[in-house]
Amino acid sequence: MKEIKVLAPATIANLVCGFDILGMALKEPYDEMTLAFKDEPGITIVHTDEFELPEEPEQNVSGVALQSLMEEYNKPVGFNLTIHKNIKPGSGLGSSAASSAGAVVAANHLLGYIFSKEDLVRFAMNGEKIAGGVKHADNVSPCIYGGVTLIRSIFPLDIIPLNVPPLFITIVHPQIEVRTSDSRQILRKTVQLKDAIRQWGNIGGLVMGFMNNDFELIGRSLEDVIIEPIRSILIPGFDEIKESCREAGSLGGGISGSGPSIFMVNKTEETALKVEKIMSGIYERIGVDYKTYVTSINTTGVKIVE
Amino acid sequence: MKEIKVLAPATIANLVCGFDILGMALKEPYDEMTLAFKDEPGITIVHTDEFELPEEPEQNVSGVALQSLMEEYNKPVGFNLTIHKNIKPGSGLGSSAASSAGAVVAANHLLGYIFSKEDLVRFAMNGEKIAGGVKHADNVSPCIYGGVTLIRSIFPLDIIPLNVPPLFITIVHPQIEVRTSDSRQILRKTVQLKDAIRQWGNIGGLVMGFMNNDFELIGRSLEDVIIEPIRSILIPGFDEIKESCREAGSLGGGISGSGPSIFMVNKTEETALKVEKIMSGIYERIGVDYKTYVTSINTTGVKIVE
Repeated sequence: MKEIKVLAPATIANLVCGFDILGMALKEPYDEMTLAFKDEPGITIVHTDEFELPEEPEQNVSGVALQSLMEEYNKPVGFNLTIHKNIKPGSGLGSSAASSAGAVVAANHLLGYIFSKEDLVRFAMNGEKIAGGVKHADNVSPCIYGGVTLIRSIFPLDIIPLNVPPLFITIVHPQIEVRTSDSRQILRKTVQLKDAIRQWGNIGGLVMGFMNNDFELIGRSLEDVIIEPIRSILIPGFDEIKESCREAGSLGGGISGSGPSIFMVNKTEETALKVEKIMSGIYERIGVDYKTYVTSINTTGVKIVE
Repeated sequence: MKEIKVLAPATIANLVCGFDILGMALKEPYDEMTLAFKDEPGITIVHTDEFELPEEPEQNVSGVALQSLMEEYNKPVGFNLTIHKNIKPGSGLGSSAASSAGAVVAANHLLGYIFSKEDLVRFAMNGEKIAGGVKHADNVSPCIYGGVTLIRSIFPLDIIPLNVPPLFITIVHPQIEVRTSDSRQILRKTVQLKDAIRQWGNIGGLVMGFMNNDFELIGRSLEDVIIEPIRSILIPGFDEIKESCREAGSLGGGISGSGPSIFMVNKTEETALKVEKIMSGIYERIGVDYKTYVTSINTTGVKIVE
């Protein structure tokens, strides 16, 4: 096969308490990408969406990820890549990770699955680096593995997929821009030991909650005493949305990645839809443009469709 | 029944990466305690061991824990408590927790199980406070629940027992004194965010390793970049012992509680015994008196024997 189409899903990094170590793949939204061999070596990228992203391979996250894969492949090869993004850049929903991960999963398929999923994460992380300024794996890992993944360590890379119960996720994306690099710069370089202890208790609880299908424990563990108090300042209506959604029966939630999207985790679709209405109502009242999604966990990651 | 004998086990707090949130109960060593009703209200304590601990109830960890239980019981009651400690105070093996936990579990039995395990942890934590200067639950929880417990939160108290595979634990206790309060004072009040991230990756990994019986993952996750580099300075031969034991096939290990005991986690009893010889050899050579234990996980906690 000389051409392949893939769907690369949005992801939620951090999952509240797991800054830089946890991430979850979603069924929606997703980017559509088509990759084909071309006769001459090198990469040609065309975007068919409205986001005005650079198409030069060395400035495009997909291009950088593909280049990283091609260096390791070490034989002359060329690709034409067409990208139609539905995940808005700067939404906090892993837009750049979807582009990076989608490209390398598609290339691996065309090349006959010579690379492991862990290899693909390594390549995709190089794409992430030009988007966020930091090499991180908490979006690209779930995008490639599906479900929820734990990044135990980046150096050396140690990715562990988690079993999770079916959950319904509601997302609201206020249409304001927060750049990952800015959102990272406002974080403090040091944290209080007592806060770190509280955070690691929550991480242990969240992992156990997922593995034991313990919804109450998942809810109690969705607490972040370190990053959220700082980053949430950039997001209008954050506290009110979180509190109102919890009162309406949502298990919990917080900032998706570095924001500004907010996500809430729900046990039933009914609650997820109720929560969507609450989010919409608050942003209508405040007067902030927004977009909502009601979705669930994508257990397969980047999907090959044709 | 007017008199009850209990065995209160040693515990390993922290389990390397889980400072203040993880703990494990051991089959050995354990304290032997006898509790009986007495006619007049109040508490009388007699120690039959050689450790010269205070017998005044308000200065004895068991006394303080019992007192805390009696206040909540809120009816006149009196106890005679006889304690024979085998867990040396200051060993880092939860000696004070065993005394506190054993006393309240015994009292609850005599009173007809009116308190929950979580109540008993609360009472026992008050005993811990006079021993360590800080109210912590990472020894008393596994001592009361058995197995490995996660303390997701102390305020409010949220204890979650973990399923763990059978493991063999080797311990060496160098006969030097490290007071919990001193060992806590040398810790920094702040930690680097990057170290905290590495630590929470390891906590996630350790919890998943335990729950999935993934021995390799348990081994990789037994890493502490925050507390161990500081506390291990107080323990002679620490680095050499840990490294040599790992080379001999041990999964990993570190400081038990606040030290000075060192523990190593092993998949087989054969490795546990090999590791014991390595530890002994190193302390023989350095010239430090020591005591070793080869034991396994105690899944029941404080045991009522008669």
